[in-house]
Amino acid sequence: MDAGRFEKQLQFILELDKEKNIFRQTHLSGHGRNENDAEHAWHMAIMAYLLREYAEEPFDLGRTIMMILIHDVVEIDAGDTYAYDTELKKSQKVREEAAAERLFGLLPEDQGREMRALFDEFEAHHTPEAKYAHMLDNFQPLLLNDSNGGGDWTEHGVAFSQVRKRNARTAEGSAKIWEYMQTVLEKNMEQGSLIDDRKQGEND
Amino acid sequence: MDAGRFEKQLQFILELDKEKNIFRQTHLSGHGRNENDAEHAWHMAIMAYLLREYAEEPFDLGRTIMMILIHDVVEIDAGDTYAYDTELKKSQKVREEAAAERLFGLLPEDQGREMRALFDEFEAHHTPEAKYAHMLDNFQPLLLNDSNGGGDWTEHGVAFSQVRKRNARTAEGSAKIWEYMQTVLEKNMEQGSLIDDRKQGEND
Repeated sequence: MDAGRFEKQLQFILELDKEKNIFRQTHLSGHGRNENDAEHAWHMAIMAYLLREYAEEPFDLGRTIMMILIHDVVEIDAGDTYAYDTELKKSQKVREEAAAERLFGLLPEDQGREMRALFDEFEAHHTPEAKYAHMLDNFQPLLLNDSNGGGDWTEHGVAFSQVRKRNARTAEGSAKIWEYMQTVLEKNMEQGSLIDDRKQGEND
Repeated sequence: MDAGRFEKQLQFILELDKEKNIFRQTHLSGHGRNENDAEHAWHMAIMAYLLREYAEEPFDLGRTIMMILIHDVVEIDAGDTYAYDTELKKSQKVREEAAAERLFGLLPEDQGREMRALFDEFEAHHTPEAKYAHMLDNFQPLLLNDSNGGGDWTEHGVAFSQVRKRNARTAEGSAKIWEYMQTVLEKNMEQGSLIDDRKQGEND
């Protein structure tokens, strides 16, 4: 065993622990507390396995699961950026780039490169794996939010057009799941938890 | 899309969310709060990838990661059983068996069978995948605990012989990592956070 190499691996592994303290805007089902990034990634990874029959294209499940497990690691330094926070969204890329540099730099060079490649692949959103992972990154919080009556949308006064925009490419990961998600959006507009701004949009 | 099948998958996925409320005796690094099962599984899964070069035998990484992700699902019903709680340990098998039956039974039959097989494989502790996963199930909390000066051991008055017993088969997953873990145990005995009962053992 190369002690220096192992030491670097352990340092990164211990650093990862901090992701459990990065809280998101989504609440756990049963009107629970805010969810953290580590839990979100764990949930998405199991979903990736169970829902793979609905993926739009053939894809490598193992690579996708690793991509999912590490896709939010940069938030250890950069913090969580809420999907509908326009101000924070502007600086997100720069903050996350610096975080990736520092965090993956803790690992032995070969493994740092592997992790960085997975993270970049997710961010680039080009491969079937990245598209499927992005679909789940939107579907997982929607499921939890819907189980709580859409409370996360109500809390932030979110409108349909914002969710639609965020999910502009969700069907590329899975058209079937995006179809289901739309029924959830309809239901939440009917019950008033998601602002229905569709008519407004038509008149723009 | 078979709506009935999808409905079952979503029901299981939403049920999984409850694992985020099952708290363990381990504390997060930086003297943080107690860790929950979902975070623990997420952390282990990334460790499985990063530390695979130390595995005792060739193994299937993808299967191991899925096994790790779901290995504590039964605790949604059965609760967490602390490794050194002798009373709870007695009823653990029965409680977890009933939980596996109910939880994996929520899924479509084929997927319920798949998940159950992974869970049973972990429990049986026979395959290289299960041995490697069990090693990580012990190594991950030890790393966090050691980062907190061994506070989890101090809190429960844990002795070396108990940790040794729990780790009786850890070397089957990775002799190299078990070797490292022993240096951590030594250090914690020296600093008084883990009770050193080795001399006592020699006189038994």
